[in-house]
Amino acid sequence: MGISEFELIREYFADVTGSRTDVSLGIGDDCALLQPPAGSLLAVSVDTLVEGRHFSAGAEPVSLGHKALAVNLSDLAAMGAEPAWVMLALTLPAPDAAWLQGFVRGFGALAAGYGVQLVGGDTTRGPLSITVQVTGFIEPGGALTRGGGKAGDRLFVSGCVGDAGLALAQGGGSIHSDHGMARLRERLDRPQPRVALGRLLRGLASAAIDISDGLTADLGHICSASGTGARVDLESLPVSAPVRAECARGHWQYALAGGDDYELLFSVPPGRVGDLLLACRDAGERVQEIGCLAEDSGIVLVYPGGRESEEIPDGFDHFRP
Amino acid sequence: MGISEFELIREYFADVTGSRTDVSLGIGDDCALLQPPAGSLLAVSVDTLVEGRHFSAGAEPVSLGHKALAVNLSDLAAMGAEPAWVMLALTLPAPDAAWLQGFVRGFGALAAGYGVQLVGGDTTRGPLSITVQVTGFIEPGGALTRGGGKAGDRLFVSGCVGDAGLALAQGGGSIHSDHGMARLRERLDRPQPRVALGRLLRGLASAAIDISDGLTADLGHICSASGTGARVDLESLPVSAPVRAECARGHWQYALAGGDDYELLFSVPPGRVGDLLLACRDAGERVQEIGCLAEDSGIVLVYPGGRESEEIPDGFDHFRP
Repeated sequence: MGISEFELIREYFADVTGSRTDVSLGIGDDCALLQPPAGSLLAVSVDTLVEGRHFSAGAEPVSLGHKALAVNLSDLAAMGAEPAWVMLALTLPAPDAAWLQGFVRGFGALAAGYGVQLVGGDTTRGPLSITVQVTGFIEPGGALTRGGGKAGDRLFVSGCVGDAGLALAQGGGSIHSDHGMARLRERLDRPQPRVALGRLLRGLASAAIDISDGLTADLGHICSASGTGARVDLESLPVSAPVRAECARGHWQYALAGGDDYELLFSVPPGRVGDLLLACRDAGERVQEIGCLAEDSGIVLVYPGGRESEEIPDGFDHFRP
Repeated sequence: MGISEFELIREYFADVTGSRTDVSLGIGDDCALLQPPAGSLLAVSVDTLVEGRHFSAGAEPVSLGHKALAVNLSDLAAMGAEPAWVMLALTLPAPDAAWLQGFVRGFGALAAGYGVQLVGGDTTRGPLSITVQVTGFIEPGGALTRGGGKAGDRLFVSGCVGDAGLALAQGGGSIHSDHGMARLRERLDRPQPRVALGRLLRGLASAAIDISDGLTADLGHICSASGTGARVDLESLPVSAPVRAECARGHWQYALAGGDDYELLFSVPPGRVGDLLLACRDAGERVQEIGCLAEDSGIVLVYPGGRESEEIPDGFDHFRP
């Protein structure tokens, strides 16, 4: 566990994340010892953020701490799982107290908010990189997978899409107001994992995924796993004013292929749509119907005015040149 | 989970690791779904290897694959846990089929040998770095922690110590024979996690740790957690011929502070030493008594001839300049 090294930053993490009774032995030995709940499955995921790839050099540490955990909680949300434990492998060019304090503040606040406890870690010296592994609980048969969709199921997305992609594309110079840009940056830097919505979707959604690669790319994953195609009505896409302005100029790539939104994309059998909308209204969850799954493979985009196209912008892939 | 990216290398990993019935859903969705055994605790650990820090640029990929998993299995061994699941976060400068095939061969062979299944991963582009997270099972109350040692407990180490440190120090040019150097390199590059020994030690050892930072540094962790000191009889240290030659020249640092050995260091109550030795003989496990835990804090090294010293070489720490 590289504990002797982790001791160095362990003090920063003391008491900032949740404290759980199912952690029999926390940080400080070769392994942590955890007590899984009887009768539950474990949902596990791991994600790495690398400087220069997922974030710029000099990125603000509070946001990095938040985002490194958020993208993993988002994977749990997409399965309908309840977050429980997290492990952190941090590679840093050098120990930096101010940076670490900021990172821990962002990471810890999100963890504590979900009752998630940090149960282990490793710290090494090297180019800045953050790997987070999360474990959540899900009842057997309750998990939302990508492969359960059927032709005719209605397609929904939470929140709005494209803000993070637009923020990334805008970088420093913005055509938008400072206020508008700050909101876009917030969406890029501090995504909110849709954990409560994921829990709500158990028993309602037939398939689900979180939007990390972009709407169409992630929809492609659902279609591929479910053996379906899909139709997306672009006019119904939930977008913010800045993204709507880009779409009006024909720049659909932010809404369709901008990654990093971490909203949930899911399909619901037609007979359950009423229940879904009621449940979302009661829970204050914002979801929008954007199309449906279809028999024929491929994703058909229906543009405002009715033009149909199968040409879709690609999602983000770290191995694409 | 960055699955769309992991798909790129997923084919390399198909069927090379173990296949387990407790994996309800493997790689390919937002999370894997795992079925923990009823009545067991989970032992979890995470470790990162970074190029230029833990291994040189151009290091042989088969060995890297082996070692990245081995150092994590060693953490499970040190707790007495039975390895089960592994997750891999791989950051690579560029996709490289030959490198990946080698890495997977080393990683997969070790995983399959222990019945460990790869259940998730992430692949990103960036400076070469490998983070592995492992989960094992251990019965409640059965775990070997660092904190159970008592003054008077006998101190044991498995295998021999110092080979990896000497190999690292020798680097390319060696004062030893080619054959001797190859054996040292093998110890550095392909450490064998002492999983079976760790399982055997449950109920026998009062405290245990794996030697990753160096014998004295890791002994310091046991002492600190157990609230004891220790005495180490240097003449009894199990060392190979090359390390013995260094000791004879007064270079005790390889045996005492060379990290990366991944042997187990553990304490045994005096009344259980007979049982330990019998069990190790039956199992073909090589262990050597090297001293004892003591009331007074601090580690006393007893040199051949009887000279005592509390001056000890330091272990390896990635954040030490």
